[in-house]
Amino acid sequence: MEITKESISEWLKQLQDSICLSLEAEDELGKFKEDTWTRPEGGGGRSRVIENGNVIEKGGVMFSAVSGKTPDFLVKEKEHSLPAQGSATESTFFATGVSIVIHPKSPMVPIIHMNIRYFEMSNGTKWLGGGIDLTPHYIVDEDASFFHQRLKEVCDKHHFSYYSQFKTWADDYFYITHRKETRGIGGIFFDRLNHNEHLNFEENFAFWQDVGKAFAPIYVSLMNKHKSDAFNDQQKQWQLLRRGRYVEFNLVYDKGTKFGLETNGRVESILMSLPATAGWLYNFQVAEGSEEQKTLLKLKKGQNWIHE
Amino acid sequence: MEITKESISEWLKQLQDSICLSLEAEDELGKFKEDTWTRPEGGGGRSRVIENGNVIEKGGVMFSAVSGKTPDFLVKEKEHSLPAQGSATESTFFATGVSIVIHPKSPMVPIIHMNIRYFEMSNGTKWLGGGIDLTPHYIVDEDASFFHQRLKEVCDKHHFSYYSQFKTWADDYFYITHRKETRGIGGIFFDRLNHNEHLNFEENFAFWQDVGKAFAPIYVSLMNKHKSDAFNDQQKQWQLLRRGRYVEFNLVYDKGTKFGLETNGRVESILMSLPATAGWLYNFQVAEGSEEQKTLLKLKKGQNWIHE
Repeated sequence: MEITKESISEWLKQLQDSICLSLEAEDELGKFKEDTWTRPEGGGGRSRVIENGNVIEKGGVMFSAVSGKTPDFLVKEKEHSLPAQGSATESTFFATGVSIVIHPKSPMVPIIHMNIRYFEMSNGTKWLGGGIDLTPHYIVDEDASFFHQRLKEVCDKHHFSYYSQFKTWADDYFYITHRKETRGIGGIFFDRLNHNEHLNFEENFAFWQDVGKAFAPIYVSLMNKHKSDAFNDQQKQWQLLRRGRYVEFNLVYDKGTKFGLETNGRVESILMSLPATAGWLYNFQVAEGSEEQKTLLKLKKGQNWIHE
Repeated sequence: MEITKESISEWLKQLQDSICLSLEAEDELGKFKEDTWTRPEGGGGRSRVIENGNVIEKGGVMFSAVSGKTPDFLVKEKEHSLPAQGSATESTFFATGVSIVIHPKSPMVPIIHMNIRYFEMSNGTKWLGGGIDLTPHYIVDEDASFFHQRLKEVCDKHHFSYYSQFKTWADDYFYITHRKETRGIGGIFFDRLNHNEHLNFEENFAFWQDVGKAFAPIYVSLMNKHKSDAFNDQQKQWQLLRRGRYVEFNLVYDKGTKFGLETNGRVESILMSLPATAGWLYNFQVAEGSEEQKTLLKLKKGQNWIHE
């Protein structure tokens, strides 16, 4: 297809459809409910949320395509780095993407997040961004290896340097500085991809599409593997605390969340990422030698998940 | 007493003692557990936390007295507004305060927050700050009137303009911009109080002490009034959602929380303010004419709680 903003939006909507169908099939109970919304300044979105499923407690697969006057901070940035093309105050932008966060009921099934986004400005600047990261309540080495191996395959298909580069970026991005913990086992993260020394825009676009397509098979496989695992109250309590950390990351650090809240975005779509329940205990300490401690000790940057 | 940083710290520790005793007496079950901690850069604190009480699910009454090199943003600010007194890079600060957040078990008992703090720098600059605000899960007009009336009495004793001024400040401070909601029914908030056109420092210090002393009788009275009220699962679910808003305020807007997390403060003390559990439902709508809707409609700035 020719890569236009219209064709990208259309492709993202189809991706949203196909992901929702895959998740519903594996959940076997929950059904996505759809809301469409419009943004006064231009564009809108199609939100799909599932609550109280068999496997998924709360999850969203959100499509949006919005446009309007380019936010000041982006206009200023471009004025410093590029020759002026028309008056800055006339600049308009278009942004489209799919964002997913799934909080499962069971503490044995990991939380997952995926986002792919496309941005362009009226001056011709455009870029791609995205990422997938996994937040297991309990880290299972075999799953971590599988998850990163799958992402590495997606990256390797396009450029041998991408996995290493974007895995490091995810380690840095999904980091809860005040806790000195990564949010989970990371994954890949990239932003402002256009053409680079490795690939042209069309080639990077193909990579970006493959990231989007990789989500459903990876997560369905993890849902399937763990959805019937037994768990007890103590593990459920640990899940609440891990979800608390997820809330801390999203409200304190996540750039998409902050940007959305500061620019008067649709609050219910932005905060779809927050779990149905979360918890905080004062000065909670994991027991020596426990599974909780083993997980906590692995929430560090720079882990080589594939070769463990 | 002569007002020195030592005497202020000592008074705050006694206030912490007396507040903890009052809350334990009304709770009749929970006991505060104490942790003392030191800060590598200077000073430390005495944290007192109560969990799983009869009335209080999770609450903290935290004392701290810390010192060190003045943070850059404060040094810069003074350079612009005051004649230089010694090199800015030599500036040191001292800060002491008591901070309280109480999350009750019952949705019929309100959440409360109180903080009083004193700050001084080696160049002689010093100020007082503080506030009390109430966050009922369900607003009871009679309680709101009682709460604001008590605060007005504390203010009026010192200056007739203080209640109106500091009530407005609380409305502005405890505001969840992205939700277009106040956190609760507000209260009073003030900062950087030294001498002003109304009172000298010693007189303002007496006001500040009275704010600290007002906390326990006010909250004990509200605990006592509502601790035996019946509630159902739906009201408990509403409490989770209101606690979710409390988490949003504290992690996204609260200056003390942000400052603490950014300056490598003691995370467990800073995030003591977060509830044991909180929740988020997608696009939750209150029922027309319900008590939840009545509360939501009152979470606005500029309410005159006393005369309602």
